[in-house]
Amino acid sequence: MPDAWTSALSDEPTRVDRMVSGLLGDQRGWTARLENGYQVELAVGANGKDDCAIFSLDGSADLVIGSDYVRGSKFMLYELGYLDNYDIGYYLAAANLSDIAAMGALPIGLVSVIRYPSDLPDSEFAQIISGIRDACAAVGIHDVGGDIGTAERIILSATATGIVEPGRALLRSGAKAGDALYVSGTTGLAAAAMVYFAGKKDKGWGLAADDETVLLDAWRRVDPHVRLGRELVKGAVATSCQDTSDGLRATIEQISAASGVGFEVDLAAVPIHPVVARVAALTGADELALVFGASVDFRLLFTARVDADPDLSEFADVFRIGVAVEGGTCALRRPDGELTALPGIPWRHQADPLAGFSRHG
Amino acid sequence: MPDAWTSALSDEPTRVDRMVSGLLGDQRGWTARLENGYQVELAVGANGKDDCAIFSLDGSADLVIGSDYVRGSKFMLYELGYLDNYDIGYYLAAANLSDIAAMGALPIGLVSVIRYPSDLPDSEFAQIISGIRDACAAVGIHDVGGDIGTAERIILSATATGIVEPGRALLRSGAKAGDALYVSGTTGLAAAAMVYFAGKKDKGWGLAADDETVLLDAWRRVDPHVRLGRELVKGAVATSCQDTSDGLRATIEQISAASGVGFEVDLAAVPIHPVVARVAALTGADELALVFGASVDFRLLFTARVDADPDLSEFADVFRIGVAVEGGTCALRRPDGELTALPGIPWRHQADPLAGFSRHG
Repeated sequence: MPDAWTSALSDEPTRVDRMVSGLLGDQRGWTARLENGYQVELAVGANGKDDCAIFSLDGSADLVIGSDYVRGSKFMLYELGYLDNYDIGYYLAAANLSDIAAMGALPIGLVSVIRYPSDLPDSEFAQIISGIRDACAAVGIHDVGGDIGTAERIILSATATGIVEPGRALLRSGAKAGDALYVSGTTGLAAAAMVYFAGKKDKGWGLAADDETVLLDAWRRVDPHVRLGRELVKGAVATSCQDTSDGLRATIEQISAASGVGFEVDLAAVPIHPVVARVAALTGADELALVFGASVDFRLLFTARVDADPDLSEFADVFRIGVAVEGGTCALRRPDGELTALPGIPWRHQADPLAGFSRHG
Repeated sequence: MPDAWTSALSDEPTRVDRMVSGLLGDQRGWTARLENGYQVELAVGANGKDDCAIFSLDGSADLVIGSDYVRGSKFMLYELGYLDNYDIGYYLAAANLSDIAAMGALPIGLVSVIRYPSDLPDSEFAQIISGIRDACAAVGIHDVGGDIGTAERIILSATATGIVEPGRALLRSGAKAGDALYVSGTTGLAAAAMVYFAGKKDKGWGLAADDETVLLDAWRRVDPHVRLGRELVKGAVATSCQDTSDGLRATIEQISAASGVGFEVDLAAVPIHPVVARVAALTGADELALVFGASVDFRLLFTARVDADPDLSEFADVFRIGVAVEGGTCALRRPDGELTALPGIPWRHQADPLAGFSRHG
């Protein structure tokens, strides 16, 4: 295999699909045993291509573990001064905890890597730590340690862990044709925030202060949907689940690929936040590109058997937006009945974080 | 507390001691419980200041988890072209697994974060993954997933996990006065490699090819001492343990501080690798600064009760180098009987990675 990789520059999804899986191989069935007979088995490893790896803990519970680096183009709003060090600490923890939520697991701890330039004052360092701490506290856990040290700029990475009842973790791969498709909130606010604030000064755009707060909070106060994930597990409601951190379209397509089903999404049922609509109108961005494209909103996208009739009434923001269908095609049902491709460019195929949102791009 | 941190620029050990612990608080006693009654308790969190956090898994086993970012000045040899992408992948995994070894735990998996510039060819990306994979395989585990994506340069971070019999993880805090002090191999090679290769070209230094290989392998093929760590747990031999990734002096001082004992190190018993001696002679570096200073050698430093009489005969490279004493002072007993301060500058207090090794610096 390596011969084929000599000089190619594959994009990230291709690297995950071909190289990571190919090189790391099939890991199923791996076990380890302590002196006292306690046995751990790897249930889902790198080849699972899921949000987290899963270990069976002596058959009594499953451990889920996932790791995300956050920064780069995602933090345009930090570079522009709209997010501070507390905010990116909070984001680091919450983004990682969202992967635990998407597995339906109960978070148990976070380890963090914090690297910072040597001229970062103690007060700013304390802000990063405080943000991480508070995002952990919001789901009832602690930052239990990790690594700190200097680097030429701020680098943040974390690993979140959780536990779930044996064999009950929510995977991307369980959707069946006929299952209903749900999303736990509106999508597009995170992308709308980038489009709006990136151009605000130059273009003289001015939204109401409340709208600006809504946009920034999509980045400042990410809310991992842990309680919903747990409910989906407890009620045996969901057949598949993933967070929308790669954008709505990418998430639909990933569940589609992992489950071997297609999806028909009903545009009339897709929730659109009024602030997303106002940003689209003001900036000329394509509304559906914001909603379906690379907007990092951390909602849960999940499928459930239609006959499961899940009682999710306590979760006001859960929307049924479509249905799983035979075959592998994902399509959007327009109000006029026409079926079209899903809009938006998935996260990670974009070179420019702002590309893909314009109306005629 | 934050008031005191407004503009100060504390060094890293101070940030860990005062700020991380202060802000994250006392985490002991935290528990989580699944629907089936399965309970996880946090045994050692961030305030433990140990290599890893420890969770008790329903009383049946303990989970250890630790995270390290590797790069920055540590990778001078990569920047100089002496290490390739395979080597730094290998190093990433092995360095993280060394923390698991130091807890006496059995590794169960590694999650990795790999960020790379968008012009990194597939072949080089495959080399990083292969290095990580092979370092994991060397201790019998898999890289079970994580995060990949682009960044403006290569950024590597990982989190290693392991399991250990309940309550048996090796901490920094268990040493008692009278315990013997051991190190599982020579120290100083990693620092000697940096000193030698950083100056080789300009100074015209030339060691034998075999010596150069020994120096580079200190970085290229880090060997986490998992088997020794497990033996120390199984035999209930060790009272404290830590790896020497911050350098020998720093590690002695950290166990001293955590355990509330001092150490008297017998210089005549400290193993010195002949290549370290040759590098010191050739380059003018101070031999003891290499051996005790910020050399990232990943040996285990541990204490054991004298009456435990551990049978470690299968581990050829375990050296008894001193004894724990009452009080908190760490000192070096010279062959003439004189007690002096421990040589070397601990890792992380150094601004310049090459500072602290010169004979008159």
